[in-house]
Amino acid sequence: MGSVPVGGGAPVSVQSMTNTDTRDPDSTLAQILALQKAGCDIVRVAVPDRKASDRMREIAEGSPIPVIADIHFDYRLALRSIDAGVHGIRINPGNIGDAKKVAIVARAILEAGICVRVGANSGSLHAKFKNINKDSEGIAQALVKSALEQCRLLEKHGVEKIKVSLKSSDVATTVMACRKLAEVSDYPQHVGITEAGTLRRGIIKSSVGIGAILSSGIGDTIRVSLTADPVEEVKTGIMILESIGLRAGAPEIVSCPTCGRTEIDLIKLAGRIEAEIEKIKSSGAIIGLKKIAIMGCVVNGPGEASDADLGIAGGKERGALFSKGRLVRTIQEKDLLRAFLEELRKHTFHRE
Amino acid sequence: MGSVPVGGGAPVSVQSMTNTDTRDPDSTLAQILALQKAGCDIVRVAVPDRKASDRMREIAEGSPIPVIADIHFDYRLALRSIDAGVHGIRINPGNIGDAKKVAIVARAILEAGICVRVGANSGSLHAKFKNINKDSEGIAQALVKSALEQCRLLEKHGVEKIKVSLKSSDVATTVMACRKLAEVSDYPQHVGITEAGTLRRGIIKSSVGIGAILSSGIGDTIRVSLTADPVEEVKTGIMILESIGLRAGAPEIVSCPTCGRTEIDLIKLAGRIEAEIEKIKSSGAIIGLKKIAIMGCVVNGPGEASDADLGIAGGKERGALFSKGRLVRTIQEKDLLRAFLEELRKHTFHRE
Repeated sequence: MGSVPVGGGAPVSVQSMTNTDTRDPDSTLAQILALQKAGCDIVRVAVPDRKASDRMREIAEGSPIPVIADIHFDYRLALRSIDAGVHGIRINPGNIGDAKKVAIVARAILEAGICVRVGANSGSLHAKFKNINKDSEGIAQALVKSALEQCRLLEKHGVEKIKVSLKSSDVATTVMACRKLAEVSDYPQHVGITEAGTLRRGIIKSSVGIGAILSSGIGDTIRVSLTADPVEEVKTGIMILESIGLRAGAPEIVSCPTCGRTEIDLIKLAGRIEAEIEKIKSSGAIIGLKKIAIMGCVVNGPGEASDADLGIAGGKERGALFSKGRLVRTIQEKDLLRAFLEELRKHTFHRE
Repeated sequence: MGSVPVGGGAPVSVQSMTNTDTRDPDSTLAQILALQKAGCDIVRVAVPDRKASDRMREIAEGSPIPVIADIHFDYRLALRSIDAGVHGIRINPGNIGDAKKVAIVARAILEAGICVRVGANSGSLHAKFKNINKDSEGIAQALVKSALEQCRLLEKHGVEKIKVSLKSSDVATTVMACRKLAEVSDYPQHVGITEAGTLRRGIIKSSVGIGAILSSGIGDTIRVSLTADPVEEVKTGIMILESIGLRAGAPEIVSCPTCGRTEIDLIKLAGRIEAEIEKIKSSGAIIGLKKIAIMGCVVNGPGEASDADLGIAGGKERGALFSKGRLVRTIQEKDLLRAFLEELRKHTFHRE
């Protein structure tokens, strides 16, 4: 997919989608830059009409990351987007039209040498699937069948760079569909839960669903769908990968939930330390620590986080800095953040 | 566990833990009430010292939900808490002391007829496990072994109401440990990722980890650990259960991620609708709709959410209300929220 390998053992990449008006390339490119800064590897842009497709050249050329044109209903928008230089297109087998139209799109994909995603969604299956069983099993089977038919059609015309996504807003259905597809094919899979919801609910549904799919060894690129700023999708996607060990956190941050034992304001402290670490990382600097622990008390402190390279354990109005289970020094609560950041800076390296 | 069944096919319950000072029963009981209101089934309270154990009677008697005393290091705090009338205790095999002390606690548990959780954490394994392999496999095995030894000891003294938790801040290690335990025993499992982190990171790690464990059919009660207000733990726990279909959402809410096709402010609209639904639900009223869809455009609108009992699809400066894929009426954007809530109210039932 442009400069980003997808499938064949490549690292799982993180995608998002712009929600600016595609007919406005300036705001769309500004959002793409924000997404890239948050760690987005590949971006998708909706092409709802001809005016939008007219701006795809500016967007594709101006984007620092590969651009996928999202096409529904009108195959001519696919042709115009391919002509504009996008790095991939997404088509929905449920609404792209008949075999003849798919054949025309296939030839254009092939000539341009770009990738295609066949993206089937439970809510927009082709009318011929209208009599399936509407349980998870029935929908999952229809998603697999619908996508595979479209893949075969594209392959008949020589298209090889295909990835597939099977999505539902129901977690169990999506997990089942992705597993069924993996049993019968080797297509790289784009994984996500569609219409997952607002920030918290969407994060939870996506983490449970994408997490389950990735944990069973399936998935090559992911997209978290949130009814929220797309930057939130990227942050969430990266953290899902980190939590499964598919992307190094550098450093991993653990912090305890606080309880009746906690005598310092740990929630505030943890939030500020995490924000500071994000700031350092997004400046391009590298923190040479594998694990940081922010703990409320002696029970969960140096002992529970004895493998942390740098940690705080709270006490009564003071806290202890520790490293690999050993006390570095004790500090008044009001000076804890400053002392911690001082230690952190000793392990921070700036690129030339 | 008091009035809440755990294990044996009972619904998966949601736990949290107070972070108030246990020596202050008023603030602790106020927090327990807030947790209960958010949907918490069982609450754990840290008993760090004798003064805290002195207040456990007031807390246990004043709490509307079962109270578990969390004990580390000092078995006498367990005895005092049991005497104070708690509904369960949690002990850590890594630090509760020798077999003689466990025997004394076992007798008290038995006499009081309460439950016990044997809670092993990777960071506080007994010193005798210090030479294990420090990979996921090695740690998971040690967690299982450590917990089972403690269970056997309790059972030797006749204790039967035992549940087990095996926790690590690493998702893969926790999932592996819970699965290993399920292979060799039938103990009800309390499931969670320990020290998962601040709000977002903690929600993601917990959703991925607890989601994977529950999806493999393991887990009887869950606790999401967040470095945040414990009410957030309860909300997250409930949404994890809803996302896996282990608790009915009533109504399920889906909403699309918005894209270049969206011409109304869907993020704001979805947030306000969701907040309104939460308000209705926490007032005790029942919404007689299974699924609500809040969609940005015609692509993802009535079609994708054709099974929604009530939905919005955005258009150009206006939106459509639909039900089961059929148009109810179209409305100016500024009136959409009001019109939606009007429809919602028709399906809202208040308890007598």
